[in-house]
Formats: sequence, C-alpha cells, structure tokens
Amino acid sequence: TEVKKIAVIAGDGIGPEVVGEAIKVMKRTEELFGYRFEFEHGLFGGIAIDERGTPLPQDTLDMCRNSDAVLLGAVGGPKWDNNPKELRPETGLLGIRKALGLFSNIRPAVVFDCLKDASTLKPEVLEGTDLIVVRELTGGIYFGEKFRREGENGLEAVDTCVYNVTEIERIVRQAFEVAQKRSKRLASVDKANVLETSRLWRETVNRIAPEYADVEVEHVLVDNCAMQLLRRPSSFDVIVTENMFGDILSDEAAMLTGSIGMLSSASLGEGSFGLYEPVHGSAPDIAGQGIANPIATILSVALMFRLTLGYEEAANVIEQAVKQVLDAGHRTGDIAVDKSKAIGTTAMGDLIVNAM
Amino acid sequence: TEVKKIAVIAGDGIGPEVVGEAIKVMKRTEELFGYRFEFEHGLFGGIAIDERGTPLPQDTLDMCRNSDAVLLGAVGGPKWDNNPKELRPETGLLGIRKALGLFSNIRPAVVFDCLKDASTLKPEVLEGTDLIVVRELTGGIYFGEKFRREGENGLEAVDTCVYNVTEIERIVRQAFEVAQKRSKRLASVDKANVLETSRLWRETVNRIAPEYADVEVEHVLVDNCAMQLLRRPSSFDVIVTENMFGDILSDEAAMLTGSIGMLSSASLGEGSFGLYEPVHGSAPDIAGQGIANPIATILSVALMFRLTLGYEEAANVIEQAVKQVLDAGHRTGDIAVDKSKAIGTTAMGDLIVNAM
Ligand SMILES: CC(C)[C@H](C(=O)O)[C@@H](O)C(=O)O
Ligand SMILES: CC(C)[C@H](C(=O)O)[C@@H](O)C(=O)O
Repeated sequence: TEVKKIAVIAGDGIGPEVVGEAIKVMKRTEELFGYRFEFEHGLFGGIAIDERGTPLPQDTLDMCRNSDAVLLGAVGGPKWDNNPKELRPETGLLGIRKALGLFSNIRPAVVFDCLKDASTLKPEVLEGTDLIVVRELTGGIYFGEKFRREGENGLEAVDTCVYNVTEIERIVRQAFEVAQKRSKRLASVDKANVLETSRLWRETVNRIAPEYADVEVEHVLVDNCAMQLLRRPSSFDVIVTENMFGDILSDEAAMLTGSIGMLSSASLGEGSFGLYEPVHGSAPDIAGQGIANPIATILSVALMFRLTLGYEEAANVIEQAVKQVLDAGHRTGDIAVDKSKAIGTTAMGDLIVNAM
Repeated sequence: TEVKKIAVIAGDGIGPEVVGEAIKVMKRTEELFGYRFEFEHGLFGGIAIDERGTPLPQDTLDMCRNSDAVLLGAVGGPKWDNNPKELRPETGLLGIRKALGLFSNIRPAVVFDCLKDASTLKPEVLEGTDLIVVRELTGGIYFGEKFRREGENGLEAVDTCVYNVTEIERIVRQAFEVAQKRSKRLASVDKANVLETSRLWRETVNRIAPEYADVEVEHVLVDNCAMQLLRRPSSFDVIVTENMFGDILSDEAAMLTGSIGMLSSASLGEGSFGLYEPVHGSAPDIAGQGIANPIATILSVALMFRLTLGYEEAANVIEQAVKQVLDAGHRTGDIAVDKSKAIGTTAMGDLIVNAM
C-alpha cells in the first residue's frame, strides 16, 4: 500500500490531546484496512512562538507542503493575545492558509440526534439540520491592504476588501459541486445592496449557475442569513460566502447545532490536498486535564479520508463508530447532561477505536 | 405647549399601515399629556423612486432636517431589487443616515414574556434576555470607496473599510453612556485579530474606558459574539460595534428574541434629533392586507419620546399599554399561536390606544 504522509500540527491548549486520539483512530484504520500513514509533527501557533519565535516556522510549512494532508489541532490562548501581530498564533493560521493555497473552508454543521438537547434551539426547530458552510478562505478583507494614516479628521485605520473574478469563481464552483452531491440547493450569501465585492460575487454566481442547472440557487443577504439560520436552520443545505461573512456565519451555524465540540472542518485548495481541523478552539481553560472532547478531530479524520485520501469506506466506519459510542450514551464533559458521568479524552478515543 | 415637528416617511410595503397606528398613538398622547405634534409627510424609498425618480428627494431630506424627529416605516421590495444602485431604496436609507449625521443605531432586543414561545430558542435560555446593540451607522465598509478595476488576475472589486478615531470615539462614548444607565456592562465587538480598523477600535475603547470606570468592558471577537448570542443571550447587556458587524449581529439578536415584529430602533447623531423605525422590513408579501403588526413602530414612538423629546412618562404609558394588550392575549398574525384568533393592524392599534 502507498504510504500517505500526514503532517500533524497539534498546536496549543487541548490541541495535542485531541490530535492524539485522532491519530489512534488513523492507526486503527491501518490495521483494519491496511493503510499506511507516516506521521510527521511540526510546531505551529503559540508553541511555535515560544520555541521558535514565529507562529509558522518554515520547516513546518515545508513539512505540510510535502504531505498528503495536514491534521491540525487548535491554536491560540491568552498567553499570546497581547503579542504584536507577527507573534500571534492567528497570524500563523492566516499564513498557512495563504501559503498552502487553501481557498476553501468547508464546515459541516450537523445535529447529532442524541445531542439535540445540547443546543439552545428548540429540538423541533433543529430537527433535520444538516448544512455545510463553504467559506472563501484566502481573500477578502482578511488579506487586503491594511494600514493607518493621518486623515482629515486625525488618525484613521483602513482595511481593504478585494475579490477578483477568479477567486470568486473557484470557490463558487466548489460550492456548486458540493451542492450537486447533496440536496442540490445552494444559498449564496452576500451584501450586494451595499458592497461592490458582493455585487461582483452575485454576478459571478449568476453567470456560472447555468452550468449547474440541477442546483437551485438562492441569494441571501448576510444580515438576513444570520436571522434565517436561527429561524429555519434545517432549510439550508449548502451556504457559500466570502471570508469575513463565512467566519461569522459558520460559527453561528456551528453553535446552533448544539455542540461545537463535535464539528469538523476541511480547508482545501486546488487538487486533493487539504488541512483538517476541529471547529472548536484551543480551550486553554481545560487544556492538560484530559477532559477535552476528541470527536471533532476524529471526525476531521473521516473528512480527510473522504475528501483527500479517497478512503470512503474507512470514513464511514469512523463516523459509524462515533455514532455508536454516542448512542450508547458515552459523553465527554462538554456534551454530558449528567456531568458526573462524563468520561475523559482518551476514554472517548478508546471507545471509538474499539467500536470501529 | 411647544409644537414638535415630526417628519413622517412611511415608505413602502407595510410602512404606511404601521406608521398610521403609531401616529394614532402619538395623537392620543396629545389628549393625555397636552403635547402638540405637527406631522409632515415625505416620500422616501421605493415610492419616491416611482413618483420622483430618486429614493431620497431633496424636499424629504429638508423636511427631516427641519423636524424634531423622524418616524420611518419601512422601505424596499422586490419591485426595486434589480434597479441600478442610485435607484434603489437602500441607497436612500444609506443616504439619509449620512445626510442627517445619524452615526448611532440603537436596537433593543428584548424578550416579551408572553412571546417567549415565538422564539426558536428554548425559553430557559432566553429568560431575562434584554440587550441593546449600539451600531456605528455612518462609517466603515458601508461608506468607504468602492470600485472595480482590472487587476493582475482580471476584473476585481474593491470595498474599503475606514474608521477614524473621532468616529470610533463618539459611538463608543454613546455606548458607554447607554451602559451606565443600565447594568453597566459593555461588550465591544471587533475582529482585532485580523482587521486594522478593529485594532484601532479596540485601542480607542481601552483608552476611554477609564473615564467610565463604573462600566465593565469586555472585548468579544465578532465570530465568537455570533456564537455567544446564541449560547447565553441573557448575559449581554450593551453591545457596541462597527457598521457591518452591527448589521449582522443586531439582526441575529433581534431574531433570537422571537419576534422581529416587536422591536424598535433609534438612529441618533449629536444632540437629541433622531430617526425612529421598526426593526422589521417592508414585508411586501402582506402589504395592504391590514394584518401587519404595528407594535414595533408604536414602540419606536416610545423610544422617540424617551430619547429625543424627553417625554419619559408618556413613553412608559405607551410601553405599559402594549404590555397590557399583549398580556390580555391579543395578537397579530405574526405573533399569534392560534392564527385564527389573530387581529389586524388597526385593531391592534386601537387596543393600544384604548389601554393608554
Ligand atoms: C483565528 C481567526 C484568525 C480565524 C479566522 O477568523 O479565520 C478563526 O476565527 C477561524 O474561523 O478559523
Ligand atoms: C437595507 C440595508 C442597506 C440596511 C443596512 O445594511 O444597514 C439594513 O439591513 C439595515 O440594517 O438597516
């Protein structure tokens, strides 16, 4: 069997703990399916700032470039929050996205049946919610020129939001393709009544839509989308949007499913290469205690298998194992109703490995 | 008694219907409190496009400038959605905000006890939710330079987000003052880990915070805020943020309270002048049927009385009357559990007038 190189950047906080369980799951698939993985570890984020003076060391980037896929834990924490920009974990995150050309962030927001009660939304509203946010990840106001200057009214700060047609087209096409494999409904979110970039976005969507005639397209204004996600979450299927709106809406969508601790994400570029990470953050408050929920990271492995490695069967086995363990009532603290019965990170990982 | 000039721009869709009820309420306060109002009506939005070829005719603007306060219904509708920019209702909205210097949009998001069930959030989560979003309204990416150009990779669109210290300071000060009159907690929302305008925003908040030492300030990233509004809405009191984030978050906050048909808003500048309008839109689908909920517009009058005219007592009487009518079980269609018992726009207005 071909050896697949996996770049592992565990990062900060609970990152190393949850990544550890994900690797256990991957190793289990070596036994079950005969796959072969070569794991290489690199420093990234806060820990890289501490040990190497930069959030994204060159050797970590090279390691990622030489890999088939990247598994990322989480980065950041209060320790680095007041650092200057170049010494902040987020700067590493933005840098790695840009350097690896990961222009598309795919975030499924699914409601786990057995976890419906964990949501702040009413179960009947949530029923059937299963959507994907496709977020543009390397353009827009995140990467446009930003600076300060003396203006007519004193000091001012400027951020620039730029999108060219090529950038819009590639992410929108990807979203159409995702929609084609699902229920064939695509909601494109913009603020075309105010922003020029949004008008170009909308025109581009409309121009290429006829090529995906089987997909029904709806344009939704970002403010309205923030509302509709709350009002009728289950009516959305695939949502595509630009970087800043995607940041906000994907977090809102994740939260309404009731457990951010369960959600995985993929960041993709051209080709099959991808970076996979849980949606949740580094949770410094519970780091090192062995109580973090590893499911999001484990499900990120399933996503990696499906989207990058083409290991569809193993992806299904992982997802089924997670479902089985949850159905049997096992919970980590974040998703437990009765906290006294909560199990720890490795116990959850072991249960999933055994259920595979 | 001094005559107060009220500029009325009813606008499109259900605008004229709901504004009609709000005027009835104001006239009732003339009887009860001896106030004197002079109402002047002006064209604005879609109807102004149709009748005058521009969404914001000069005489409407002059009328507003010569008034003590503006009462606005709602603007927009599918009829004008595909118009060129200068012929769109939204352009009138942005224009009037800028022309009247209304840099601050104040949107209370309150849960009406008797309407808790209308929310998609669980009642226990919603319990006690009573927050105000203070949104910057005349700066940021809404008003920065926007254009298209040929870039290295073909056609591109650009939007510019600019904030100067003066603009930030005046809205932040206003939010501090609002917080001082409430529970003394202020959440300032930004994206300081990515945007330069947000970093200037945060610095400015921190610089002036000591002048409001009794207010506890928290900085919240916009993506996190979108989540926390869902997870713990009742923990927020006053939220202050820039224009684009405020657009999204205020709509999310409004929706989670369960009835956008109930919420009022104020747009203020320097001094006491203000523009008052319901949070909901023009609802073209139900326009002209006499079934729209006038409560948001009526409560906007209460806000006008309190914030612009200093008629605190009458403001309370209006709010009490609304509460009493709701407590007695009267509902318009949008908020009725049993739709067959729903009452119409004027019936609701009459009940409130009678309860005053
Ligand atoms: C940390 C931050 C820069 C990042 C973003 O805004 O993209 C994060 O919120 C995310 O969504 O991955
Ligand atoms: C219509 C639109 C331009 C406007 C805005 O984005 O400000 C609206 O959404 C609002 O919030 O008043």
